[in-house]
Formats: sequence, C-alpha cells, structure tokens
Amino acid sequence: MRSETFTVRTGDRARVHDLTRQCAEFVGAERDGLLNIFVPHATAGLAIIETGADSDDDLLAALEVLLPRDARWRHSHGSPGHGRDHVLPALVAPSLTVPVLGGRLQLGTWQSICLVDTNIDNGEREVRLSFLAGD
Amino acid sequence: MRSETFTVRTGDRARVHDLTRQCAEFVGAERDGLLNIFVPHATAGLAIIETGADSDDDLLAALEVLLPRDARWRHSHGSPGHGRDHVLPALVAPSLTVPVLGGRLQLGTWQSICLVDTNIDNGEREVRLSFLAGD
Amino acid sequence: MRSETFTVRTGDRARVHDLTRQCAEFVGAERDGLLNIFVPHATAGLAIIETGADSDDDLLAALEVLLPRDARWRHSHGSPGHGRDHVLPALVAPSLTVPVLGGRLQLGTWQSICLVDTNIDNGEREVRLSFLAGD
Repeated sequence: MRSETFTVRTGDRARVHDLTRQCAEFVGAERDGLLNIFVPHATAGLAIIETGADSDDDLLAALEVLLPRDARWRHSHGSPGHGRDHVLPALVAPSLTVPVLGGRLQLGTWQSICLVDTNIDNGEREVRLSFLAGD
Repeated sequence: MRSETFTVRTGDRARVHDLTRQCAEFVGAERDGLLNIFVPHATAGLAIIETGADSDDDLLAALEVLLPRDARWRHSHGSPGHGRDHVLPALVAPSLTVPVLGGRLQLGTWQSICLVDTNIDNGEREVRLSFLAGD
Repeated sequence: MRSETFTVRTGDRARVHDLTRQCAEFVGAERDGLLNIFVPHATAGLAIIETGADSDDDLLAALEVLLPRDARWRHSHGSPGHGRDHVLPALVAPSLTVPVLGGRLQLGTWQSICLVDTNIDNGEREVRLSFLAGD
C-alpha cells in the first residue's frame, strides 16, 4: 500500500477545501484499487460534494444550524463554541474510500473530494492518501 | 479489483432504494475481501439501515427537518429547495465499505445497503460496486 | 483478509464506547493495509472522535437534538422514541476504514475509534474488524 501525507492551509475560518487534484495526481500512475483519504484530526471531516456552485457554503451554513457554535458544549477548550468542531467528525467522517480504475478516480462529473474544516483555531491540516491496489 | 456499475430508477420523489440484493449477487462468487459501494452523483448518498419497517420513511422525514427543502440555500438550480440535495452527501456519504467472507456480505440481520436519493430532478442513478479481494 | 468479531457491553443507556485499543491490538502484528471496522447492527454507528474530554457526551447530546427520542417516528417498536436509533446509522455510518502502516493505526493524536450506540434496548453489541493487507 502506497501512503503519503500532505498539508493543507485552512486559515482561521471554517472552510471546505477541494482535495480532488491531489487525490487524482496521487493515483494517476496506478491501475485499479481503492483510494482511502484520511484526516488525522479530531475536528475535521471529509465530504464528496460539488464545489464552485455555492454548495460548499451551503454545507458550512447547514453545519452552523445543526451544530451551533454556542455555549451548549461541555467540551469548552479553544474559541467559544469550539466544542461543535469535536462533534463534526461523527457526522462528517474523517475517512473516505473512492474506487480507482486505470489510475482514474471513479468520481461523478460533479463530485469533488473535500476537506471540511470548521475549526478556526487550527490553520493547518494534514491529509493522508493511501492506495490499496487490486491487481 | 472487479468493478461494475448498474442503474437504479428512483423516479421523481425522494427515495430510499434497497441495493442489498445486487450487492449480495455481485460478491456471491468471491471469497474474502471488501466491497465498496459508490454513487457517482453529487445529490445522493448511501446508508445501511433496516428497510421494510418504516425506518426508510423516518430517514427521509428526518432529512426534511435537518436539511429543509426551502429557500435558504445559495445553490439555487433545479426545483425549489434543491440546494439541500447537494448538502446531503456530506452527511450521508456516497461511499460505503462492507466486509465479505466466503462470498457473503457480513451484514447484520436487520441491515440493508440503501441508496438515499432526495433529488427529485433526476430519476435515474448509477451505482458502482467494487470488490477488493483479500486472499 | 483477516476478520474477527468481538462483543461490547453497552448497557441500557446511550453510549460512546472507545474501540481504539481493540483495533490497535488487532493490527499490531500486521504491516501496511486498511482496517475496516464494521458494526452489524441497524441501530448503532461508528465515529472517530476525541474521547475523555466531554466530546462523547456532546455527541450524544447533539444526536438527541438532531434525532429526538420522541413520538415522531413511524417505526415504533421498542422503547418510546426508539425509531430514532434506526435513523442514526444513516448519519453515523456503521462502517469505517482506517489506514495502517507497520502495524500501527494512522490515527491523529486526539482521534479514537468509537462505537456510537444510542439504543437502550440492546445491551450487547458485536463489532467486526477486518484487515486487508497492502503488501
């Protein structure tokens, strides 16, 4: 299994960061198999959504409603409301698997692999890509 | 890795569509390994739930509350409220992995592999099954 | 593929149960590959979150808000409101994949692999671990 990490700068606000290019390059020289994308952080997740047509902002807005950045959370380290970022990975998991055929991600036309990072206290995130060959 | 796609007709209303039979048949001649189910669409997801006992309708009703089909969404193509369908895959991911032993899905008694399609503008969906052998 | 199950006693209230130790031991003698964790139950899920800093209780509290244990559910077997437990796996999926290198789970410092069991009618749960080697 080939496995590598890279770093994403996410800055100090909630972000949906498109990782598709890096994923596509990582598997470009492979044949068939499964690509696992994994984020080794307790306050970020991964999602396959459309980017560039406002759905990334819609996702962040929906998460503000579903997991409000307010005083309800018992985990109270970091910025006010940061406890919600620790619940995020239960709903937007930090692990995703995508099939690869002939070195190409089998994504649909409108799908992008995205890091979902609502944590505003950590401006840098690591992503691990692992390819398990099936031939 | 063996990989195939098939088409599901989902019609013009939100649907939970049971894919278990197709998945079971796909791995029936295999031995041990992992089955990946993947939906190459930006407005659908996959879930393992019980079917045939109203939980599929409960899921659709819960999603109507969590992601209302209203005017809040910035993504505003398609039917009114369709932006919510683009957020769905972040919560109900389009990729699932199920262990297989001796050609049998290792599902529990009450588990079914389901396509969750809230998109009423697209009546046909593609599903990709990929089996990565582990022996 | 090596695959085993073990049983977790979850008692009669909603629980987040840390499975990281069992997962780490399961892959300890392996080299590189993917660990799949799978729960063969229709009313439980798996999450990678921080434990021991109140985020597990925050998760259960958030799920009480997102999927209330009330009379709205059409699936009405079991304890009052139990229908919500059947929707849970669509949001907190019962399957997770974690990369392993040199026999070590590639989790981040604050990540734990957890069983999320909101079902108060079933005090015992099975977990399946499967390792697919990549070398």
